[in-house]
Formats: sequence, structure tokens, C-alpha cells
Amino acid sequence: MHEPTPRVPVPRDRDDDYGPAAAAARRAFATERSGTSLDHVGSYSLDPQTLRGNIEHFMGVAQVPIGLAGPLLVNGEHAQGEFYVPLATAEGTLVASYNRGMRLLHEAGGVTTTIMADHMQRAPSFIFPSAREARAFGVWLHEHFGEIKAAAETTTSTGKLQEIEQYSAGRMLYTRFNYTTGDAAGQNLTGKATQAACRWIRAHNDTIEHHFLESNFATDKKSSQINMLRTRGKRVIAEATIPNELFRRVMRSDSALMYRARQVSNLGGFMSGVNNNGAHSANGITALFIATGQDVANVAESSAAFVYAELRENGDYYFSITIPSLIVASYGGGTGLSTQRECLELMDCYGTGKVGKLAEIIAATVLCGELSLGSAIVAEEWVEAHDAYGRNRP
Amino acid sequence: MHEPTPRVPVPRDRDDDYGPAAAAARRAFATERSGTSLDHVGSYSLDPQTLRGNIEHFMGVAQVPIGLAGPLLVNGEHAQGEFYVPLATAEGTLVASYNRGMRLLHEAGGVTTTIMADHMQRAPSFIFPSAREARAFGVWLHEHFGEIKAAAETTTSTGKLQEIEQYSAGRMLYTRFNYTTGDAAGQNLTGKATQAACRWIRAHNDTIEHHFLESNFATDKKSSQINMLRTRGKRVIAEATIPNELFRRVMRSDSALMYRARQVSNLGGFMSGVNNNGAHSANGITALFIATGQDVANVAESSAAFVYAELRENGDYYFSITIPSLIVASYGGGTGLSTQRECLELMDCYGTGKVGKLAEIIAATVLCGELSLGSAIVAEEWVEAHDAYGRNRP
Amino acid sequence: MHEPTPRVPVPRDRDDDYGPAAAAARRAFATERSGTSLDHVGSYSLDPQTLRGNIEHFMGVAQVPIGLAGPLLVNGEHAQGEFYVPLATAEGTLVASYNRGMRLLHEAGGVTTTIMADHMQRAPSFIFPSAREARAFGVWLHEHFGEIKAAAETTTSTGKLQEIEQYSAGRMLYTRFNYTTGDAAGQNLTGKATQAACRWIRAHNDTIEHHFLESNFATDKKSSQINMLRTRGKRVIAEATIPNELFRRVMRSDSALMYRARQVSNLGGFMSGVNNNGAHSANGITALFIATGQDVANVAESSAAFVYAELRENGDYYFSITIPSLIVASYGGGTGLSTQRECLELMDCYGTGKVGKLAEIIAATVLCGELSLGSAIVAEEWVEAHDAYGRNRP
Amino acid sequence: MHEPTPRVPVPRDRDDDYGPAAAAARRAFATERSGTSLDHVGSYSLDPQTLRGNIEHFMGVAQVPIGLAGPLLVNGEHAQGEFYVPLATAEGTLVASYNRGMRLLHEAGGVTTTIMADHMQRAPSFIFPSAREARAFGVWLHEHFGEIKAAAETTTSTGKLQEIEQYSAGRMLYTRFNYTTGDAAGQNLTGKATQAACRWIRAHNDTIEHHFLESNFATDKKSSQINMLRTRGKRVIAEATIPNELFRRVMRSDSALMYRARQVSNLGGFMSGVNNNGAHSANGITALFIATGQDVANVAESSAAFVYAELRENGDYYFSITIPSLIVASYGGGTGLSTQRECLELMDCYGTGKVGKLAEIIAATVLCGELSLGSAIVAEEWVEAHDAYGRNRP
Repeated sequence: MHEPTPRVPVPRDRDDDYGPAAAAARRAFATERSGTSLDHVGSYSLDPQTLRGNIEHFMGVAQVPIGLAGPLLVNGEHAQGEFYVPLATAEGTLVASYNRGMRLLHEAGGVTTTIMADHMQRAPSFIFPSAREARAFGVWLHEHFGEIKAAAETTTSTGKLQEIEQYSAGRMLYTRFNYTTGDAAGQNLTGKATQAACRWIRAHNDTIEHHFLESNFATDKKSSQINMLRTRGKRVIAEATIPNELFRRVMRSDSALMYRARQVSNLGGFMSGVNNNGAHSANGITALFIATGQDVANVAESSAAFVYAELRENGDYYFSITIPSLIVASYGGGTGLSTQRECLELMDCYGTGKVGKLAEIIAATVLCGELSLGSAIVAEEWVEAHDAYGRNRP
Repeated sequence: MHEPTPRVPVPRDRDDDYGPAAAAARRAFATERSGTSLDHVGSYSLDPQTLRGNIEHFMGVAQVPIGLAGPLLVNGEHAQGEFYVPLATAEGTLVASYNRGMRLLHEAGGVTTTIMADHMQRAPSFIFPSAREARAFGVWLHEHFGEIKAAAETTTSTGKLQEIEQYSAGRMLYTRFNYTTGDAAGQNLTGKATQAACRWIRAHNDTIEHHFLESNFATDKKSSQINMLRTRGKRVIAEATIPNELFRRVMRSDSALMYRARQVSNLGGFMSGVNNNGAHSANGITALFIATGQDVANVAESSAAFVYAELRENGDYYFSITIPSLIVASYGGGTGLSTQRECLELMDCYGTGKVGKLAEIIAATVLCGELSLGSAIVAEEWVEAHDAYGRNRP
Repeated sequence: MHEPTPRVPVPRDRDDDYGPAAAAARRAFATERSGTSLDHVGSYSLDPQTLRGNIEHFMGVAQVPIGLAGPLLVNGEHAQGEFYVPLATAEGTLVASYNRGMRLLHEAGGVTTTIMADHMQRAPSFIFPSAREARAFGVWLHEHFGEIKAAAETTTSTGKLQEIEQYSAGRMLYTRFNYTTGDAAGQNLTGKATQAACRWIRAHNDTIEHHFLESNFATDKKSSQINMLRTRGKRVIAEATIPNELFRRVMRSDSALMYRARQVSNLGGFMSGVNNNGAHSANGITALFIATGQDVANVAESSAAFVYAELRENGDYYFSITIPSLIVASYGGGTGLSTQRECLELMDCYGTGKVGKLAEIIAATVLCGELSLGSAIVAEEWVEAHDAYGRNRP
Repeated sequence: MHEPTPRVPVPRDRDDDYGPAAAAARRAFATERSGTSLDHVGSYSLDPQTLRGNIEHFMGVAQVPIGLAGPLLVNGEHAQGEFYVPLATAEGTLVASYNRGMRLLHEAGGVTTTIMADHMQRAPSFIFPSAREARAFGVWLHEHFGEIKAAAETTTSTGKLQEIEQYSAGRMLYTRFNYTTGDAAGQNLTGKATQAACRWIRAHNDTIEHHFLESNFATDKKSSQINMLRTRGKRVIAEATIPNELFRRVMRSDSALMYRARQVSNLGGFMSGVNNNGAHSANGITALFIATGQDVANVAESSAAFVYAELRENGDYYFSITIPSLIVASYGGGTGLSTQRECLELMDCYGTGKVGKLAEIIAATVLCGELSLGSAIVAEEWVEAHDAYGRNRP
């Protein structure tokens, strides 16, 4: 066993831990120990005082390059018309590839987007002496839904409890408390609301031996079949029909070959146990999440997807992607940070009433990227493209 | 069908698209269209000329706040001793929570880390007239492995082809070309190497009807059972044994209750079809990926994990987390960008020979975060903590 | 291409294809072509005239040996008291192993069983011009549930439509029509009812481009996460708490070691992507399914299971198994065949009002088998047992 | 807690537990307790003395009706030409449906079958103080493969150890010992061989803290992604190309519509988390398993499948099904029982050197059933067919 040296915690400023002095002190502390200058980390325009609630032990920023892609043409219900899309990434070719896809889809008349469902959840588990009481509790939950909903909603003005799903195993009842959360992603408000609900439940039901607020049934920050089936965040579908002439001219590709590759990929993904039979939706989602202040760890869940394509008799290619657990906010979290808010405003997606628009833009962007990479793979240009644009990347 | 307006592409500067003027022109273009100032996006200290190969259509940066956590005590083979860990996030409580876990594990003597395997892959599929030829091709691949390896390695100095896995279905043979890639993540070099290998194969085997360079068997940017089983990137295990006295004192928790919650979570995750029976490894991984210039979209795959815990008779808690597809680099990609390189150097993880160290630090960080959130859930402090620290987050 | 000889179909008797002559003619036909006597196949006591609706081209029977195990002590809601259980199998040690487990559980006070849910489904998919119409159709389905239910139930006296689940992807809406089906397994009655419902739907909704009666969302005869989550057939839980003294005396095993093996198996199963973290529930289920005239192909789905165990401080072992898609009938299908009906009657499980009892007996039997095999594995007697009893089995 | 009555075990005959008196005594015992006659159960032509090693507590037989389907035309490597196939089932329409598919495929020139791989495994887990020793043990296993193989093969004349797969998590190393097992299914011989191997390993490696012979990594009697990827038993592919003219004439169906339904089913299955994107392979497999004395519980694993189809420009339909874990024997287990052996001999599949033939016949049969049910679903005849033939089935 290693004999630890006396532990020196990261310095904190008791008076103003979000002041510039506190950040500078932490950088100096780190520099002293590592010999590394943190000058770039210390170069930022944001006001650290705005970071309360977003970070602790602030010492500076990561500067993540943003490229601008577009115009993206969206035929959504919330997003309508052209958008220029900020993508934050250090992966060479990513912006160029999405941009190329946006050009294809612009010429094809745009991407149709539809939000099919909207749920954010916390998923407490309840433990009973045996399965019998678990089953009875399930009935009780239905009977007291109104009171439980009222208890949950005391803690939030925007969260609305829609339903409580139930899944039994052994002497446990796993539940999912599904909420709508307005323009916020809602993980925190649903946490608070569900905790309040659980307190009400525990006070009014004495058959429960124990409960845990989370037991891997909402799978926050993790991909799961249940979220792919039952939705977490927004379930968004992007669709388009692209004439083969456009594939040939814009993408040096071909719809029949695209379709053939898709068939082989569908089976490959089914056999490999993948959570996304598409190509790389995580790329566009991550780049947009970083640029717009989303909780980027939610890429874990938001990267799940279902692709469905059809080759029409005339060579047209119908292509759709369903993102079943897109977790996104236009308000709260990191959306209000300086650069992030600018990027949201660039798409008119900041603040109240804008989350649907943002979700649709993301889904449309993803579709463009799918067709672009898909074309590159079948055109065997893919590796060459990385070679040309991504020369820093070994 | 929407009648598109004439498409106005994002401006490019033919002479110097990575100069400050080009970026400024794009910001002005975006501002003109959106009415949004991009002053913060335009505030950066990095040199845009260094961004070739990392991004196209550069217009500025996302400033992502970095908090400093630590000291993290690692008993690794590559990482040994204390590290201060930069975490880039806008999720309130994240840094505080990981920091608390690092304190617990420091008192417990540190986190033991082990890299079990290291593979980066491309996964071409080959299509034949029938399964018979696919099977014969599988034999042929084995027989010609040396020549295929030589062809692949002509394109790279660091990538080494280790083996070619085979999975058959219908008239296809899906393969995985597994490489070691030194200190790079290696997605691009393995792409080039595998393309060269495929060219050699096509030139020397005329039974192949078609091939695709990817068909959802490497599942880049996607989580899959095959990568959880067979490793993509690094397979890293972090372990520790924590006395219950520490749980009680540091975490206001209890090992027996932690263990009970783990059991319920294990079953919950099995039933929900999650790719990670732990708590939230994506949080720490994402924050470190952003800070250190990793390809953040790989959070999709890297967030998979296996937790295994034991409650010892004396109340000690053995806890381990296995990250089967941690995709990480100390060189190439975004690792050389200004703030990212500083963050790597802060942990002495930049450049040649450092990728193992970085992988171990990430895994150790993840373990700290698991025990911290796990403790909070069982201590029912979790929601309160978000309330206190995360007040910006609805 | 093979040049086929003129195809000689299996002989049929236009007058009485279920008479003894027809069966004999088919055996003679087979014997003539193969040179194989089918005397044993032709030895049966059942009346072929009773087989209409169960088989076509009848030529004889497979004689599957039945062993009797028990007494099984069940503390169910439908099954109460002791049962002797007929197990049809040719796997040596199976009956002995289940019998040993029944002895253990008898001494432990019996197995508690609970039916948590009961749904049989057909799962039509509906295809629309785009996701928009699919979403609107989802609303329409809710609004017209009463009429759809009425249309479905015109075809059946026992089937009751409970709800229609909806899952969207691309331009499709996948649905699950969930029914209760009384004492029948109900695959056929739900098929007819859902077809009638679909006809009503198509007649009253002209937005549907096409529909298919099944598209892999009920997963009849296949195991799926959705059925494990949402139940197909009966969701049955069997539970018991066993003193360690009994493990030691009856099983030459130990609860602490059982529990340790369980932990390792839980993780193994999570990593291997198994549909059942238990040991071998398919063995008991299959043997009971064959003996009692169930549709044995449903072993595919019915073999899914969730095991949850706890080691109590006093050494007691709480063990539960949840069978989420147990498809079982006490009426209809093969339950009325001669030997099958006898086996059902032996447990007082034939006919109306008995399906819950049968489901509970099966679940209790499964639990006994889990603890028996689990004990054998940890006691390292397992292979020896097969050696002693299963000597015909290489 | 129930107060159990004195437990009366099933009677056994110490002198001759496989004699007719012993079986009769057990039937009398059961009849006395249940009031149910077991006359049909007691009607059998098999000789109970042959059942040692197949069953314990024998009391009679289940008579499962067998229908004869065919001719099935197979273009295999082991099975060549026409076969009449015995199907044991009580599900009305099953035989008729498979028979119809066999007619279609006969006219189409037969089914091509290929065995791609052949592995039977036991999967011991080894537990170490930490992951470090687990990794070292993995290297040690490779270095000592020859000695381990020799130790394993001392116990068997037919089993050959091919390789040992390794999968690490926490402080465990999960392994799969893959064997070829000749004409036997091989679960028992691989169990004995692996136990011998483990004894040798434990005697020669003192870093192992504990091991278990099975920990859910071979997933005997359970479906798993690892078996679908890495094969358990035989990996068999059946393929055919069918002219649309045949679909129309024989099946009143259409290849384009079949293909469209397949696309929707592929996505449905991907979303529902099914282990088989086909229609109902378990039906044919189960019916053949019962008829031929296979271990029917293996339907759990053997029912996994991958369907891959193509619609050719001329309307031809290429269809393939891959069965990745078909567990089948032509020798041992129940294959030698009286009716079962007759059914094997009817296809010339009994005994040494015949297992490949049997595997190919099963796969070809499955393919016929897929196209038959698939046609029925698209032709909307499906429910009507059950109505006409399956009238006993509610």
C-alpha cells in the first residue's frame, strides 16, 4: 500500500471563490505542482461570477474551436427555414462533412423534423418484503397518482408529472417518473420533484422497506434499451427524400449503393449489439452540445439512434433517423454561459419556448451528417477526406 | 415542398482560411444573419493557424469552464502518485462531487488501475456470392495475414495490425482489424491502414463481390456489446477497497447500504438494457475529454462500463469499474490545442509515451465519481447537493 | 443448380386425413424412401381424430420420457400446497436435480409465487407518408380506443384488449395490442382480434399507407428486451428464503458461496449480453411445457429471467426469479391431447380457471432448479452428477 | 409460514428403478394423490431400461404428435437432395406452413446450407486479488495452452479444445473453453473436460483466489449476444434465391412486398431488442428437436437468428438466415430413444458422422418456414390459416 503524502486540497477562496483571484490562485497552484503554464486556460472572456451553479473550483476554460456549417434547411414545426450551425470540435473533416450534407439536403428541399415525445425522468426503486407487496404498491401508485403528482410539482414551476411507469422484478418495483420540463433538460428539477414525491409516498405507505432515488432505470448518462424504447428527453425524427441525381452530383455517390451499404450496416449493427444502426450521430450531437452549453455527458444517451431508409423505384432515397433520447435545453445549465448563449442565439434558440427548435435543428444536422459520411464510405473517399483535412490526426 | 431561397454558403477565404480575418468574416456573416453578437465566441488565445486538421470554417471558440479537482491518488502502472485533474463542464456539483470522491479514495490509499487490453479497429465487411465463399475467404484471410499486415502497415509508422476477427452472417463476412496505435487514439490511422489492406485483399482475392470499409462492427462513436466484450481503445480497470469508517466519516454513507443499492442497481440495469451498470462515468470522462482535447463524441462508446463490488465481512467495500472501450490519446487530434495541451501537461500526459498514464488517470477519476454519487444517492443528499451548488440548473 | 427430381409430396387422405390409415400411409411412404422402420413412431394411444387443429400430415408420435418430481411445496395465490410435477426430458440428471431442489425448498417452507402481470399481444406496424402522420395516428389511436377495442373483441369471447402501446421510428408507428386471454395462451385469438381491429382502423383512418400484422414488436417465439420489460404472457415471480443450515445439509453447499457465485454470474451475464442472469430455467420450463402440451417453441421467450438474491446477516439466502414472459395455457392448443391432459390433471391444472395455478407451479419449479444447479456448481459436484446419472450423454 | 405436511417423496425401486414396475408404481402414486388416470402416459413402446442416463423417476411418456413435411430439397455439403422431415408439435398450421415453404424452395431449386463454425464451450471464471493478477493469468493461459488442452482431453475421446477466449472485468477473468465435440452436442463432455482443465490450472497456478465452472459466459440454455457473435454449437447459414413468379404462384405473395415487410421488421427487431430479426425459427427448430431427441431446452439459444434479404432488380428475392448457436447432436443424449432414433434414421441422420447433415436439414427447414410465414403475413392470410387449421387453439 502506497503511503500517501499529506493531502493538499485545491485552494478555495472563502470570500469569493468565483472571483478572478480564486481562479488565478488555482492556476498558480497547478502550475507550481506541474511546472506547466496555464496561460491559455486562464484566457477567457466569460465572467466567472456567472459560473455559480455551473462549476466548482473554477480555474479557467477549455477553448474548443467552433466551425460554422450551413445553411441547414429545416422543415420543422419549431425550426423553419435556414440555419447556420455552430459546431465545436477538434476532429478534422467533421465540419466539412456536415456542411457537405447540409448542401445536399438543401438542394433536396430540406429536412423534415418531428418531435414525437418528450419525457424526462427520475426512476426510484422501491423494495418490499416480497413481490406481493410490490404488486399491491403498484396498484396504490395508480390510485394515488394525483396526490403524488401534486407532491412532486410543489418543487417546480415547469416540471409536470405525466405518468409513473412500473417494472417489477423480485421484491422490487422499479418505476420511472416521467415529466415534461419545459425548456430545461430537467434532470435536476425531476430529481427534486421525485424526491418530494418519494417523501410523500413514504409518509403515506408503510409497506415500503426501502427506496433508492435511482437504480439504473432512467439511465442518466448511459445508453439503454428502455430509453430507446420509451424516450428520455426528446424523441425526434428527421426525414428527407433525396433524388439520386443529387447523390451523384453533390456526393459522387449513388442511392442504390448507399442503400446496399445500409442493408449490410443494419445487419452488422444488429449482430454487434450496437445502440445506433446509423453512422455517427454522436459527432454532430457532441459538436452542437459543446457549442450550445448542453450537458455533454448526455452524449452517452443521446447518441442512440434508429436509421430507416428506402430505395424508391425511381432511385430516390428516403432516409430517416430517429433520436429516441435527445437531451437538450434552451435554458438553464450551461446554456447561459457567454459563448454558449451566443451560439444558441445565432440559431434563435436561447431561452423560453426554444427547446423544440433546438431539438429539431440538432436532428436535422444529424441527418445531414449521416448522408455525408454514408456517401463517403460508399464512395471510398472517406479515408482520403481525412487525409486531406485531418492531417494533424494520426 | 419548401421553395428554397438561393443558398448562401458560409464564407471561406481562399488565401488563408485559418487567418483571423477569415474567422472574423464568418462571425460577421453569422451576426448579420442572426443579429447576435459573437464577441465571446471571438475571444480566444489560441492561434487559428494551428487548427488546420482540427476544424473547418473556424469562427471562434466555445469557452467551457474548467474546475480543478484533486489530489487524485493513483496506484497505476503508468500513473503513479497524486494528480490534479482538470474537469471541463457546466454541470454544477460535478467537480465538487468528483473532488469529494478523490478525497475518499486518497484516504483509502488510492485507486489501483490496470490497462487490460488495447485495440483500435476498423471493421470492413466483405460480400460474396454465398456463405460458402465467405467461409473460404475467412480461411484465406488467416493464411495471408502476414501480407495483409504488411500492406496495412505501409501507411503508418505507429499502427500495428494485431489480428483480424471474423463474424459471419448471410453472404457477408464482417471483420474487425485490430491495431495498436501508440499514443494516438488511432481512428484515422487505422482507417487508412485498413483501406490499404482492403486494396491488397481486393487485388489478390477475386471471390469478393463488394466490400465496405465500415458496416457497424467497429461501432465508432456508438456503444455496442461487441466493443464491451472485445475492447475498443483501452480496456481499463480501476479498483479500490475502502474501509467503512471512511464511508461514514467522509461520505456520511455506509458500505452496507452502498452495497445494497448496488445490488438493486445491478438488476435494474440488467432489466433496462443499459450499457453501464454503474452510476455516471460519462460525467468524468466527458469533462476530462473536453479539457484534454479528446474526440468528445467518443463518449458514446467510452461511457460503457462494468461495475463489480463486494462487501467484505469487516465492512470494507471492494469496488471496481471496468471501462471496456476508453478511447483516448496523448498525441494527435485535439490534444495539441492550446488549452487542451496545457491541461494534459498539468498531469504530465502530453505527447509520446503518455497515453497509458492518461487512461489510468481517467479510470481512477471515474471510480472516485462513482463512489461519490453512489454515496450521495444512498445518503439522500444527492438532490440537496444539486440544490446548493447547481442553482442555475432548472 | 440442382436439377430437381419430380417432387413427390407427402401423401394425404382426402376423405379422412386424421384416420389411422392416413397416418399409416405416411409412415409407409417414409419407410419406403428411407428404409427406416417407424414402428415406435406408430405406437401411440392417442386418438388421431382429436388432432385436428393441432397438426397436419400426422404420422405418429414422439415418445418423450416423463419423470416425476416432487413434492413441490408452493405458497401461491393460485397454487397452494404440494404438487408432484411431471417433467418430460431426455437430459439425464434433470429430474433428479429439480427433485433435489424441491426437497430443499420443501424443508425451507415452500416457494412463494406471485403473478405480477398478464398480457398477450399482437404488434402491428403502421406506415405513413412521414413521421408527422405517424404521430397524429398515435393520438387518433388513443381517441378511438373504445371503438378499436370493440372491433377486436367481436372475434373472441375471452380476449380483452387492455391497451395499445406505441413506439415510433421513422415513418412507422409500431404498436403492441395487449390483451388478457383467460386460460388460453392466446397467440391465435389475439391474432384474430388484432386483425379485426386493423380492419376497423384501416376503414376509419385513411392516413395509413400500409400496415403489417407483425413486425418484430411482439417477438412471438423470440426473446426480446421489450418482452422482458413489458411482459408477454405471465410475469411470474418465485421467491424463497432458505436457511444456510439447509444448504449445508441438503445441498452440501453454503449460502455465502452461492451468493459469491451469483455476484460473479450477474456480472458475467451483463457482459455476455444474456437474456437471463440465472442458471437454466429453460430446463424446467421445457420439461413442463412438453409434458403439459404447451407450445414448446415459446421456450425461446419464456426462458428469459431475472434472478435477484440477498445474503442475510444470519446466513439466510433470499432468492427470487422473475419470469417476465412465461407463455402458458391450461386450455386450448396441445393441452387437451391425451398424455398432456393427464399431466395437467395430475396437478389439477387442466381447463378453465387453472392457468394461474400452472404458471405458479412452473415458476416454483424453476426456482427449485436454480438453487439445485447453483449449489452443484459451487459444490463442484455438477460434473460428477452428470457423470453418474447422465452416462448416455457424451 | 405454511406448516408443511410430512414430505412424501416419489417412490423409487431400489432394485430396478427403470423396470416397468417402478414406472407403474409412480403412476399409481400420482393417481392416488390426484385422482387422475395416467393410462396414456403409461402407454409407450420404448424400453424403459434404455432410459438410464436420460431420465430419473421415469413414469411414462408424453406423446407428441409428429407430422411429416417435405420433400425438403437441400443443397448442403453434408445434406444433399430431398428429405422428408418429421415435425413434432401440437401447434396447428405449423406442419402445413413449413410444408408449403418446402414446396416453394423445392421449386426454387433448393436451399443452400453452410456450416460456418462449430464450437461447444464451458466458461469458467477465475477470481484474483486484483485485475493485475487476472491479466497475468491471461498471459499464463496462453503460454500453457498445450498442457491445459492435454489435461482437458484426458477426459474425452471426441472433444478437442480449440482455444480459450478471455474477457476481463474487475478482478475476474471470464473464459470460454471452445471445443469441437464430434457428433455429440457436447455440453457434458466439455463440462468434464473443462473441470479437468481447471484442476490442472489450479494445481499449477497459485494466483487464483477462486474459480467457478460457469458464470454466464457460455450461457447454456440462455440466449446471449456473445453466443450470437462467437457461436455456440453450429453456426449454420441457409440461403436461397426465389423468383418472384414462385412467390406469386405458390405463396400468393410478392417479393417486393416481402422485402418491404422485412425492412420494417428489421427495424422493429432492432428497436425491440429481439435476438432474432426473422419470423419464427423456434417453431421449426423445436419441432425437429422434439422429434429427433435433441435437448429441447436449447431452443433458448438455438432460436437466435440473423435474417438478411435482398430484392434483386428482376424481382428475385435473395433470402438467408444465419443460426449462430444451433445445438444439435446425431449421437448421445435423447437421440437413441426409440421414436427419436427412428426420426433421425428417416433422414439418415443417426449416429457417427451425421451431425452436420442434421444441422443443415434443420437450417434449411427453418428457411422454408421463414418464407412461408413471411408470405402469410404480407398476404394477410395468416390469421385465416390459423382459423382454418388451428381451430382447437383459442
